[in-house]
Amino acid sequence: MKITFIQTGGTIDKDYPHTTKGWAFEFGEPATNRILEKLDPSFEYNVITSCQKDSLEITDNDRQKLTDIINHQTGSKFIVTHGTDTMIETAEFLSKQIKNKLIVITGAMRPERFRNSDAETNIGCAIATANLMENGIFIAMHGIVKDYNEIERNLETGKFY
Amino acid sequence: MKITFIQTGGTIDKDYPHTTKGWAFEFGEPATNRILEKLDPSFEYNVITSCQKDSLEITDNDRQKLTDIINHQTGSKFIVTHGTDTMIETAEFLSKQIKNKLIVITGAMRPERFRNSDAETNIGCAIATANLMENGIFIAMHGIVKDYNEIERNLETGKFY
Amino acid sequence: MKITFIQTGGTIDKDYPHTTKGWAFEFGEPATNRILEKLDPSFEYNVITSCQKDSLEITDNDRQKLTDIINHQTGSKFIVTHGTDTMIETAEFLSKQIKNKLIVITGAMRPERFRNSDAETNIGCAIATANLMENGIFIAMHGIVKDYNEIERNLETGKFY
Amino acid sequence: MKITFIQTGGTIDKDYPHTTKGWAFEFGEPATNRILEKLDPSFEYNVITSCQKDSLEITDNDRQKLTDIINHQTGSKFIVTHGTDTMIETAEFLSKQIKNKLIVITGAMRPERFRNSDAETNIGCAIATANLMENGIFIAMHGIVKDYNEIERNLETGKFY
Repeated sequence: MKITFIQTGGTIDKDYPHTTKGWAFEFGEPATNRILEKLDPSFEYNVITSCQKDSLEITDNDRQKLTDIINHQTGSKFIVTHGTDTMIETAEFLSKQIKNKLIVITGAMRPERFRNSDAETNIGCAIATANLMENGIFIAMHGIVKDYNEIERNLETGKFY
Repeated sequence: MKITFIQTGGTIDKDYPHTTKGWAFEFGEPATNRILEKLDPSFEYNVITSCQKDSLEITDNDRQKLTDIINHQTGSKFIVTHGTDTMIETAEFLSKQIKNKLIVITGAMRPERFRNSDAETNIGCAIATANLMENGIFIAMHGIVKDYNEIERNLETGKFY
Repeated sequence: MKITFIQTGGTIDKDYPHTTKGWAFEFGEPATNRILEKLDPSFEYNVITSCQKDSLEITDNDRQKLTDIINHQTGSKFIVTHGTDTMIETAEFLSKQIKNKLIVITGAMRPERFRNSDAETNIGCAIATANLMENGIFIAMHGIVKDYNEIERNLETGKFY
Repeated sequence: MKITFIQTGGTIDKDYPHTTKGWAFEFGEPATNRILEKLDPSFEYNVITSCQKDSLEITDNDRQKLTDIINHQTGSKFIVTHGTDTMIETAEFLSKQIKNKLIVITGAMRPERFRNSDAETNIGCAIATANLMENGIFIAMHGIVKDYNEIERNLETGKFY
């Protein structure tokens, strides 16, 4: 099995600013690299950056670039790390142009850099989905893994169900 | 969805001894509790301790106790945390007396207490398997999720494939 | 020995926002509480919040409040956690109204919530200073502990010397 | 300022065994390296390994080797990481052959590899002592920094006072 991990930004990859007097977060290298180093996985993988954006700022141009990357990679299994606010919109966009591939969209409620992050468990959920499913577009958050058509989000708490 | 997590011991739950002059590890409370607190899952769950043993010391009596716990719980989805050395033996034992339930056996190569542990990613793999599969006995380690009949282990490196 | 820890905000106490769609950091409870829990210290202590501000936003009113807290506590040893940008200004302000007390100002370049934070080592530096010195106002950052009159900061890199 | 860090073993440097079926800890590279990387200190330093032993197994030969290393280094400030059970004995041994140098002995109650370790705070205490003192042999544990002649240990709880 081979999995291609694609970074688009979002909370999971937020890092502390390197400049003094910085206030907001900055995006760093994919957290996936650090998680996979600890896992020492038995599957093959590569890690690609498509964009580094807060998910409220992701545009259809960004989604088209992501689509093109997925359609041009040789493998059929993809884990996309993404901000939580527009995961479902990105899944819908991808569904129109991608067939016969398995895509799992995941992310985190707190950056992987944080000691109390949910990032590792979410990436684990995505990896198992890549093992068990052959095609479709899934979202994995809060310990729930569902087809993007079936998952729902509570907009007040931010939790997926 | 409801998942019952069952602790049997193994590397994932090894903690530093509380006595002075201690050398070997001691088993602590289930690491699953700490991981689930960070995840804030949308599914229901409970956490049970069956035993707290290194997996080389798990006996058929321990496996029978685990079987009985699973058969007497009301839910149908179980994640068993277990030492890595006899995961496959325990899966075989469970397979003979348990039907129509979904069991995922997982653990870790380094204790969850360690900063560089693989525990969270492994538990994530197990949780996604509980989402996606209806019955069977699976093992989730090193990013690989397979039926216990199909997974293999390299005895030199300790890695599952 | 008794040490009073006083929170004023700054990078050390920045936490991830709890609201969805949050971008900037929020201040959380004092990181000192979490560090002292791990240390299990043999000295007595209490932890007080004076304000929760980025150090560029700390005003002379905030500094007066901090001064008053220190002058009204019964003990003579204080560790003030503070943003790095105006540590020296706050030390100068305190020096004019506080006599015969030992104050150490410290903080962090990355929040204590981050896995790769310097917060614990800095708090350790401040604690040792409280052990060894009887009075004066010290700053502890980047492994350097000096009287506030003697420490210097490289404004480009943010490092204290 | 230059500080020489010397590893002798002890809890602070215990790591999980790399072999499968391992039960006891193994000593790894000095935890000091990882702590200093996060601190990004403004002082010069080097890190040396004298031995890698549980402190109950340290012999007078090991202590002589440590003494010789300290006496042959060019700097005058040393931080020795050491198991907690014989810190005071090692300090006494060093005191007989070393003059006009500043030595701080520290360690940890839980390995630095653990998320809930006290190692970073202890190393911070030692670093500040190296800043503030010119000579003598100090022990830094549990947030207490004292001359080795003055520190005491509760043998039941393991805590220094």
